[in-house]
Amino acid sequence: MSVLIDNLQYANWSEKIFRQMREGGMHAIHVTIAYHEVFREMVLNVEQWNRWFEQYPELIFMGRTHEDVKKAVAENRTAIFFGFQNPSPIEDDIGLIEICHALGCRFMQLTYNNQSLLATGCYEELDTGVTRFGKQAIAEMNRVGMVVDMSHSADLSTLQAIELSSRPIAITHANLHDWHPALRNKRSDVVSALTQAGGMMGFSIYPHHLKGGTECELSSFCQMIADAAERYGVEHFGIGSDLCQDQPDTIVTWMRNGRWSKQTDYGEGSAADPGFPPHPKWFEDNRDFPNLAAGLSDIGFNKSEVAQLMGENWLRFYKESFVPL
Amino acid sequence: MSVLIDNLQYANWSEKIFRQMREGGMHAIHVTIAYHEVFREMVLNVEQWNRWFEQYPELIFMGRTHEDVKKAVAENRTAIFFGFQNPSPIEDDIGLIEICHALGCRFMQLTYNNQSLLATGCYEELDTGVTRFGKQAIAEMNRVGMVVDMSHSADLSTLQAIELSSRPIAITHANLHDWHPALRNKRSDVVSALTQAGGMMGFSIYPHHLKGGTECELSSFCQMIADAAERYGVEHFGIGSDLCQDQPDTIVTWMRNGRWSKQTDYGEGSAADPGFPPHPKWFEDNRDFPNLAAGLSDIGFNKSEVAQLMGENWLRFYKESFVPL
Repeated sequence: MSVLIDNLQYANWSEKIFRQMREGGMHAIHVTIAYHEVFREMVLNVEQWNRWFEQYPELIFMGRTHEDVKKAVAENRTAIFFGFQNPSPIEDDIGLIEICHALGCRFMQLTYNNQSLLATGCYEELDTGVTRFGKQAIAEMNRVGMVVDMSHSADLSTLQAIELSSRPIAITHANLHDWHPALRNKRSDVVSALTQAGGMMGFSIYPHHLKGGTECELSSFCQMIADAAERYGVEHFGIGSDLCQDQPDTIVTWMRNGRWSKQTDYGEGSAADPGFPPHPKWFEDNRDFPNLAAGLSDIGFNKSEVAQLMGENWLRFYKESFVPL
Repeated sequence: MSVLIDNLQYANWSEKIFRQMREGGMHAIHVTIAYHEVFREMVLNVEQWNRWFEQYPELIFMGRTHEDVKKAVAENRTAIFFGFQNPSPIEDDIGLIEICHALGCRFMQLTYNNQSLLATGCYEELDTGVTRFGKQAIAEMNRVGMVVDMSHSADLSTLQAIELSSRPIAITHANLHDWHPALRNKRSDVVSALTQAGGMMGFSIYPHHLKGGTECELSSFCQMIADAAERYGVEHFGIGSDLCQDQPDTIVTWMRNGRWSKQTDYGEGSAADPGFPPHPKWFEDNRDFPNLAAGLSDIGFNKSEVAQLMGENWLRFYKESFVPL
């Protein structure tokens, strides 16, 4: 029985989507529960998830360890793992890392586009690397079992985080810069350092990260994965689709602007195209996840490699990463 | 091997006290981590405990289930279980009950002396019983596995909570009103209803709850326990010493006044005697816990009954109470 894991989604969650997770056979999903929320606001988001776990126990439950993915397989449910795309929920308080881990958080980006208290985001002009607090935070995340995620970070910060972290880190949702030179996609030196240190990268299906955007062909996406596997080793990759299903455009504005700007920042979009771009036809919701397996098989991956990319690699990483040292 | 549990302490915690826990052979202690703290302040107190768990792993660790008491016995450490003496950490938000349980809270008083959002405290003139929010909160506490504690509550509120709760509740620290008619000690109708519903009561060694105060003899305290066991059944009792070791008097002022009063409330003390009263000589710190076993034996309890009172009854209650329904 193969395991299906999508290591990044941020949908406008609903019973419909939870049912689609089951229809797609998803065993685990890493969901974003905070962008710019401070601690108390993030707790409200955990509370909302707790209500959904109570309302839909036959569909979803909170994932805490890799054992919960096995439980999901056995019980035909989907384990939901929490993550933050910004360190705002830990505010300026290192003790909140262990608190957030106790509440279920398993991934935290050190930055979301901008400079944070921990590191530099990929949209800043100068990248000053991991800060004093950042170094302390990485050590604490290593200790409690919270994964350092550098998806939206600048390159020097990312390379330093890989070096500083005693446990492998992740880039949960991005693609190869060589394939599509978007600001958010990762250059070969970063992917090389990440994978050589045992880290994981999840490939994104967010249109701004795709060659050709919404019109990108599944075969092109899968060819990029084949190239990555050949260059860096298939065991370091999985999916982090960045599915933003059913979200109103006000949400992408929140993601990009939080409360930090009075001028509108369009991120990867533009004034002419400010909203969420439509996902490609071959991946519109969780029911399409098996399409990726077919695409990977067509491009030439064998059965075992497809299983690794579709979830087994993330499962191994979960096992290594979520337990306190 | 018998199990030693003290189900209520609020000391000025230090390495010295953690070492005394080990010298006294304590396997589990329910510690108060909040009086009047709002949620975010209570989280700071959890953070402080997390630091102590990290600093003194050979002495203490966080207790979450009754299995942790067995682990403490096997590893010669003390399991620390968290509790609140007031519902202030859940503010006006029922979702915070599950959040607080995830952070380790296993006991919550519905009131601390005053009217709360949930029920009436024992110092109010009128006792209006469990409120609308209180009824919802009890059901949620039952669901997640957080014990309703009515130690500082008024009688009607306590009787209603016993009736409303689908799981047995606790009076973690109080004595029999018949023995010493302090406002905080419990009348026979309350003790009777509590125990008939399967609840537990922990006997307090806080001097204001003792006949004769600090000068109370161990034999008198143990005779009260013998009377309680005869009237209500030995299986419903244990110790909740209310040890407030090494606390400065500013702390008892905080306990009594929080931020709710500009006039000083002296609680069980008085303007002439405003501070913490000294504990009796036979129970000054955790090293004296075994003295209680000797006193209980001397008063006529057999070996099995002494073991029940010293910890086995609380352990059974932990097993019944801490797991979600």
